[in-house]
Amino acid sequence: MELFFLGTGSGVPSKERNVSSLVLRLLEERGTTWVFDCGEGTQQQILNTNIRPRRIEAIFITHLHGDHIYGLPGLLSSRSFQGGESPVTVYGPRGLKEYIDISLQLSGTNLRYPLYVEEVQEGELFEDEQFVVEAVKLEHGLESYGYILKEKDKLGELQPEKLKELGIQPGPLYQTIKSQPQTKLEDGRIIHRNDVLGPPKRGRKIAIFGDTRYLPELVNFLEGADLLVHEATFAGGEEDMARDYYHSTVKQAATLAKKAGVGELILNHLSSRYQGDAVEQLSEEAKNIFPNTIIAYDFYRHQVKRS
Amino acid sequence: MELFFLGTGSGVPSKERNVSSLVLRLLEERGTTWVFDCGEGTQQQILNTNIRPRRIEAIFITHLHGDHIYGLPGLLSSRSFQGGESPVTVYGPRGLKEYIDISLQLSGTNLRYPLYVEEVQEGELFEDEQFVVEAVKLEHGLESYGYILKEKDKLGELQPEKLKELGIQPGPLYQTIKSQPQTKLEDGRIIHRNDVLGPPKRGRKIAIFGDTRYLPELVNFLEGADLLVHEATFAGGEEDMARDYYHSTVKQAATLAKKAGVGELILNHLSSRYQGDAVEQLSEEAKNIFPNTIIAYDFYRHQVKRS
Ligand SMILES: [Zn+2]
Ligand SMILES: [Zn+2]
Repeated sequence: MELFFLGTGSGVPSKERNVSSLVLRLLEERGTTWVFDCGEGTQQQILNTNIRPRRIEAIFITHLHGDHIYGLPGLLSSRSFQGGESPVTVYGPRGLKEYIDISLQLSGTNLRYPLYVEEVQEGELFEDEQFVVEAVKLEHGLESYGYILKEKDKLGELQPEKLKELGIQPGPLYQTIKSQPQTKLEDGRIIHRNDVLGPPKRGRKIAIFGDTRYLPELVNFLEGADLLVHEATFAGGEEDMARDYYHSTVKQAATLAKKAGVGELILNHLSSRYQGDAVEQLSEEAKNIFPNTIIAYDFYRHQVKRS
Repeated sequence: MELFFLGTGSGVPSKERNVSSLVLRLLEERGTTWVFDCGEGTQQQILNTNIRPRRIEAIFITHLHGDHIYGLPGLLSSRSFQGGESPVTVYGPRGLKEYIDISLQLSGTNLRYPLYVEEVQEGELFEDEQFVVEAVKLEHGLESYGYILKEKDKLGELQPEKLKELGIQPGPLYQTIKSQPQTKLEDGRIIHRNDVLGPPKRGRKIAIFGDTRYLPELVNFLEGADLLVHEATFAGGEEDMARDYYHSTVKQAATLAKKAGVGELILNHLSSRYQGDAVEQLSEEAKNIFPNTIIAYDFYRHQVKRS
């Protein structure tokens, strides 16, 4: 499970930071890739990576500001052109479907794969065997969401020594035993899976937020989160400005991470006003409040750890 | 008058060639810039040039395929964000207004400058003191236009020796004489401008075409053209394929240039199938038919000459 930041700037692209997009690679987990926001130039950023658009399974849009969506029609079209065939679902606020439909239709684009657009509301978006994904309402002037991904716990590892104690030799039977709660052996004995498995592997919890004002009550959604990705459009001290523009400061993001007790904090959506040493300063501001902070940059890759 | 190619690829961006956009800089002529097509990433390409979005006066869209328009909402938005205040007019086929309106509206974008969108038909788009611009219908499956720019002839230079012969000394009076057909001097004499001017400077004629099948009848619009910018999506020999996909081959573009007797031909909209030596080969194919051919590449700049 790897986060790959494609655009970490805010509002308009700069040479250093493209507009918003980040990719969550779930290659080991499900052989697919999820995209969060898709500002203009996302497909061009992808050209400089080993990300394969055909692997994209879902795209989550936090809000409809141009720096988060103007790359969507292009990415969807190019994925088709490049032979992508598996379905894609795009989640996002009301209006997203019209934006995608009109853009594709007026440009005469016929995708060669099924595209589903789901306009979301606060609450659970979907649940499958591996993940529960939930949307949380933020405050950004227009509808804006954070997405909370809960990986389900995985079964522990089979403990060969326990199986051998029971006189069961290595072989295909091991997989059978792991695959069901209990297994009846040829000799009539019943083996309970839990008796021969190690401790379960806790699923990770990741929160990827869109643009938002500082909302202390969001801690309620972050309990047990291993990682929070949060915007940091302004430096500490600019809280009034941040409030006026429906954004957050570095300090506010770090404060939220600290209050929630998340494992790690990654800051993105940085204004191009901050360059070089100024970014270093933002980093220190954040770390003074929440030491486990990283300031993302374009093409930064991050392995998601269990905290 | 300089052409600045920002994107010379076709369909999808590649590392070598971005999708379509080209800029005509009229800084000397009128202090502004005209843009032709605006594929995704045009504003990012501009970041690597000295082109100023605030100088953009007009944007001409040849057709609504995504690789020619998906960069438009972003460029228009960023121009506002960066303080652009002068009006912009966007010309293009039917549907363009809906595309722009919906994209800006759903993304909550309020431009701080007047934006006019004019959906064009074949014929004259506008005429002012310097230029006449005309749209020509092409054949590309959906509505596609070529734009023909005719610069008006300029007055010749004042000939100081002729003025001196008439006993008129250098001074502000020279400008007055140039600015009107005839000028009455203090001594009562009437000076006819044409008597003291050198030969007029012929205006240039430039044709910038969108995607199209080969249409021999287009020569009729190219009479006296100094420069033709034409697509070359396919190599010579692939005329059937080009026809099926509503595109042209390098040979067809060169043939049109030859038949029309234009001054120079610049080819763009190259497929990413052609790289390195293959591009060299395309260039030779074209030059065998029309020697004055240039194959454009991203960031190629071309001074428009009188032929
Ligand atoms: Zn925003
Ligand atoms: Zn086209």
